[in-house]
Amino acid sequence: MKSAVEIVAIGHELLLGETVNTNAAWLGRRLAGAGIRVVRRAVVGDVAGDIHEAVRDALERTGAVLCTGGLGPTRDDLTKPVVAALFGRELVLDEALLERVRERFTRRGIEMPASNRSQAEVPAGATVFPNPRGTASGLALEDGRGFVVLLPGVPSEVHALLDGSVLEWLVRRFPDRAGPLLHRQVRTTGIAESILAERIDDITTSLAPLTLAFLPHASGVDLRLTAWGDMPEAEARSRLDAAADALAGRLARWVYARDDQDMVDAVAAHLTARGLRLALAESCTGGLIAKRITDRPGASDFLVAGIVSYANEAKTALLGVRPETLAAHGAVSGETAREMVEGVRRATGAAAGIAVTGIAGPDGGSEEKPVGTVWVAAALGERMEVARYQLLGDRSEIRERAAQAALALLLRLLRESEP
Amino acid sequence: MKSAVEIVAIGHELLLGETVNTNAAWLGRRLAGAGIRVVRRAVVGDVAGDIHEAVRDALERTGAVLCTGGLGPTRDDLTKPVVAALFGRELVLDEALLERVRERFTRRGIEMPASNRSQAEVPAGATVFPNPRGTASGLALEDGRGFVVLLPGVPSEVHALLDGSVLEWLVRRFPDRAGPLLHRQVRTTGIAESILAERIDDITTSLAPLTLAFLPHASGVDLRLTAWGDMPEAEARSRLDAAADALAGRLARWVYARDDQDMVDAVAAHLTARGLRLALAESCTGGLIAKRITDRPGASDFLVAGIVSYANEAKTALLGVRPETLAAHGAVSGETAREMVEGVRRATGAAAGIAVTGIAGPDGGSEEKPVGTVWVAAALGERMEVARYQLLGDRSEIRERAAQAALALLLRLLRESEP
Repeated sequence: MKSAVEIVAIGHELLLGETVNTNAAWLGRRLAGAGIRVVRRAVVGDVAGDIHEAVRDALERTGAVLCTGGLGPTRDDLTKPVVAALFGRELVLDEALLERVRERFTRRGIEMPASNRSQAEVPAGATVFPNPRGTASGLALEDGRGFVVLLPGVPSEVHALLDGSVLEWLVRRFPDRAGPLLHRQVRTTGIAESILAERIDDITTSLAPLTLAFLPHASGVDLRLTAWGDMPEAEARSRLDAAADALAGRLARWVYARDDQDMVDAVAAHLTARGLRLALAESCTGGLIAKRITDRPGASDFLVAGIVSYANEAKTALLGVRPETLAAHGAVSGETAREMVEGVRRATGAAAGIAVTGIAGPDGGSEEKPVGTVWVAAALGERMEVARYQLLGDRSEIRERAAQAALALLLRLLRESEP
Repeated sequence: MKSAVEIVAIGHELLLGETVNTNAAWLGRRLAGAGIRVVRRAVVGDVAGDIHEAVRDALERTGAVLCTGGLGPTRDDLTKPVVAALFGRELVLDEALLERVRERFTRRGIEMPASNRSQAEVPAGATVFPNPRGTASGLALEDGRGFVVLLPGVPSEVHALLDGSVLEWLVRRFPDRAGPLLHRQVRTTGIAESILAERIDDITTSLAPLTLAFLPHASGVDLRLTAWGDMPEAEARSRLDAAADALAGRLARWVYARDDQDMVDAVAAHLTARGLRLALAESCTGGLIAKRITDRPGASDFLVAGIVSYANEAKTALLGVRPETLAAHGAVSGETAREMVEGVRRATGAAAGIAVTGIAGPDGGSEEKPVGTVWVAAALGERMEVARYQLLGDRSEIRERAAQAALALLLRLLRESEP
């Protein structure tokens, strides 16, 4: 396989789960963007035999290996001697590098600890990549079998090394590499993965050489189209656009956004373009919708306020929900949702409103209204939609799904009322 | 090595970095807690040959393999047939399982799509673990070489399966496993990692054989003590307790919780024990505090309501902040924070209140009030504390730090007024 690398990540803390290996995902994206594919990853502990075996296997299999971690000055940092031995190279002191390491300490007004001297030792014949963020340099070793690049484990140092020098070095090793991996995404909500797959089955079978991945989340299923860089970039882009349009056309009712846009971006774009202001009344989502909207800079362009009316008395006092409504229909009902959204629009003067009331669990369900029962009301000018959902999952998933369903209902009103 | 497993994670999206493999870290921690060590991980794409090779190698090397991912109903889900073939087993339809899968759809009022039928196919002789959260069951295959357990890739389903049945099944396979890895945690906020490290330097040097890790987050620094299962469990527990007490005693001013308790748990415990009710007024945190509180079941025991007063007009209309205060001091000021917390307590009758107003960025800063300027007011009965913070980080970190600082200020009032 061309332009393929394997990653070997080294560190007990990764295996024990005390650190999440965010380097792996970052490297995967960065390399794919340069037309280089990560075809396999391994994670091993700080054990010489395990490091040796994992790097050797990857080198034999793919001939191109990136290691992260195990380049520090302490005794459990074994990557450098193990990989040097794998290439039959001695470690030799690099005086210029020693000077650089020492200088980093001097700048902080500290004398270099003796243990850091080992960080200036380099396998004979290795390429050295200066690390602008730390004392562990990047290193590369090559022979007839291929190459191994050593990077430290600290994410900011990995980023600085790759973008500073290592990516350029890698790219030169793959003169025949394909064009960059290109993506398009069609984001859906409110439809199960398998039903969605059935509806687009005919489109799916005629996509090649593009591929399609189904990425399910609590808040919906993303369809991700990929062009693998094996055709001219212009052709890839036009094929991707056509395929995304075909999918979005077929699934129009459930599509809320394209590519990296999310639900809040889609709703925000409609509201700001039309100068509409939004108010929220949240019960079971408890501020999650407000939080999602204000995660995004620019929320102040359209969001007036949100009211988290968690207790029934707050529904009455802050939103004007009538006690008779609560008594007759309960807090989790279409009638209450309707009065909540009317109340928050009245209190704020906003043209657009969303209200959510439901049972997120784990307790509070009944036969008639089991956990996952959620009522949403969305209002826009004179129009109002009220809908009941039966959502699956744990408390956090039900809340996420409820927030997504509420925003989706408002988005539908916004689209249908498009001038 | 005894009591060791390897993990093989399957999915192109992991290699491409579109999904971070959070399952791996979670499984590492959960298994370590049961005395089972993850000794290696591999990540491969949805390619039959790669899955086959990775699982076979792991099975030969360690004899105990957990796979995650690739159990869905679509055509790129290959884990089950590949692993069945590795054990020379046919896939057979499990009628009881089919009924369960069908029922999940029926409960949502949907007919089961034909493709989901494949999820009820099981390798002959496999152990089936019911999945309470989805349609992909967990599976285990065993022969003379060892065992392979198959889990889906969706984190909530992995958690439900492992804790529901798989962990118990695994533990029975390792009768000679070591003592569990034990942890204690002391959680701090409002103090920098390096200053904290200096203050406990003498305690740190006398901890062995326990180890201490500093885990910094946007919302504070956690101190994690670990006993590695190399002494009797009772001794480990008493050493850990003594060490945690020593750290917490030294750092009392900054410690908000122990072990898995978080800030909301700590605040909630005080409020519910004393029958106090809480109301929130959030500006720059935009619902984040309400969301964090309602993430937790039982929030209705103490939370009355939250008001996200994002626009200035909402601060006036919903919270009664005086226009003169806004004009004289600005929305981001101690005076506004004070009037916000008074307003939300007045509107809800709550005894406890928090208000936050600040500049989360990236825009909106000035020389006098740069991005990261946050004012918090916390009130409890007759007492009120108002504090200014200058927080670092991007928009999301500033919001998280502001939420944490606000809850910490209320926690201090609650502790100081303890009857």
